[in-house]
Amino acid sequence: MLYLVGLGLSDETDITVKGLEIVKKASRVYLEAYTSILLVDQSVLESYYGRSIIVADREMVESNSDEILRDAQTEDVAFLVVGDPFGATTHTDLVIRARELSIAVQTVPNASILSGIGATGLQLYNFGQTVSMVFFLDNWRPSSFYDRIKENRDIGLHTLVLLDIKVKEQSLENMARGRRVYEPPRYMTVGQCAAQMLEVEEDRKGGVYGPDSLAVGAARVGGREEKFVAGTLRQLCDADEALGPPLHSLVLLGRRGHELERDYAREFAVDKDLWDKIWAGDYGKQ
Amino acid sequence: MLYLVGLGLSDETDITVKGLEIVKKASRVYLEAYTSILLVDQSVLESYYGRSIIVADREMVESNSDEILRDAQTEDVAFLVVGDPFGATTHTDLVIRARELSIAVQTVPNASILSGIGATGLQLYNFGQTVSMVFFLDNWRPSSFYDRIKENRDIGLHTLVLLDIKVKEQSLENMARGRRVYEPPRYMTVGQCAAQMLEVEEDRKGGVYGPDSLAVGAARVGGREEKFVAGTLRQLCDADEALGPPLHSLVLLGRRGHELERDYAREFAVDKDLWDKIWAGDYGKQ
Repeated sequence: MLYLVGLGLSDETDITVKGLEIVKKASRVYLEAYTSILLVDQSVLESYYGRSIIVADREMVESNSDEILRDAQTEDVAFLVVGDPFGATTHTDLVIRARELSIAVQTVPNASILSGIGATGLQLYNFGQTVSMVFFLDNWRPSSFYDRIKENRDIGLHTLVLLDIKVKEQSLENMARGRRVYEPPRYMTVGQCAAQMLEVEEDRKGGVYGPDSLAVGAARVGGREEKFVAGTLRQLCDADEALGPPLHSLVLLGRRGHELERDYAREFAVDKDLWDKIWAGDYGKQ
Repeated sequence: MLYLVGLGLSDETDITVKGLEIVKKASRVYLEAYTSILLVDQSVLESYYGRSIIVADREMVESNSDEILRDAQTEDVAFLVVGDPFGATTHTDLVIRARELSIAVQTVPNASILSGIGATGLQLYNFGQTVSMVFFLDNWRPSSFYDRIKENRDIGLHTLVLLDIKVKEQSLENMARGRRVYEPPRYMTVGQCAAQMLEVEEDRKGGVYGPDSLAVGAARVGGREEKFVAGTLRQLCDADEALGPPLHSLVLLGRRGHELERDYAREFAVDKDLWDKIWAGDYGKQ
């Protein structure tokens, strides 16, 4: 059996009781470690589970999945995924390969940022499609997120923006020379995301949002130290210190907000008066 | 401290280790039991937790929240919610009341149907806003879901439809006579949902979807006995036997599907050839 086990969002105790039992008895345990991270190290997980974990990087999952699935027709293999196994990134290709090999699959769901973001007080049924934001490079500034946000904003909906993480990346030079040397991990911050969003609006001038649009920055959602900062996109450009360490996410508000949402998120506002003023003008409309 | 603890989607072992520790040590434990249900009885939870649970119905949560919050400034109160605490229904009003009473709040996230539905193979970033479907009555057939689905379909997105549950409902007669006698619980099925959807399309004739639109019916998502049936809305009208007991949900597909989604969900199709044919004509477009 192949078990896809969600680990939740924060630390080693966010695994479900069902998931923990599977991890303890599986023949091999893999940890998918390139689409998201927990807020604790691998060694903490290993000591909590009482066993060793094989870290599965993108290359292994995408090019060497048969090694992960080896003998899973008769043995139990656990594949651990931060958040929910079908959360921000799906692992449907691994399941399709398992089916081809006649391996049974069972999923153990867990918390995902897609529902955890409800802790901002923004109602989940007021969210449109989720988008991703990557680190811009000099010559690569993909802005398809902008079109998606426009679609959401046009019908009044909030947008959850998931922020890029870079783990086990090679520099171009090291890649060219075939050196397996990796850069330190990088996690996009709310400040970086807000700045990139404003840059794209300035470029494309679609009026989809602007420096005075309301948003909520979120850090370490679901963790004991979770933190939210609400304000305009301009304010969120400078909110990284208040938010603290990764992981960060951002929600851009849609106009179709409810007053309960306004009041709940107001608690997190950099400037409550400005929050109220902009809300009164542009939000809370059906 | 007020703890909002998600229980996940299926049985007593879907609670997180962190959540279970909180339940075991809290002064009082409430179970919110009117927006969703687990697939196991209260008695199973009580014996698993080794303690008794107070069932909180809608009336208690909405009109008597101060009793739930009693002494939570100094004691630990656990409020258990099926799924994620901020999932399909939010409990933001309880948190706002706790803030007014200077009670600290901590949330323990868990799996929600909003991410668990990824087990259909449909990619979560291709979903638009989530809608709810209520049991129609002779003189009450709310169809605002139809406008929301139209918004999603217009931009090519899937729609998750959450289905009504009726627990602890009184008949009009019993209500009029003040008798605290309750009807047996009812859970909407995929077949009932599909039929109501087609009825509304026939009424409103907006061409938002039709009998040949593709959808996936889901039952007991996240449980060991989870089950999916994929097909046209017409086919899903008759899928209840195949799907089995509650809870059910339904996803109406958007045209912006990826071939991985087609292939994954095809495994669940009532008629794989028809699935392929309709997909080829109407889906997989950007």
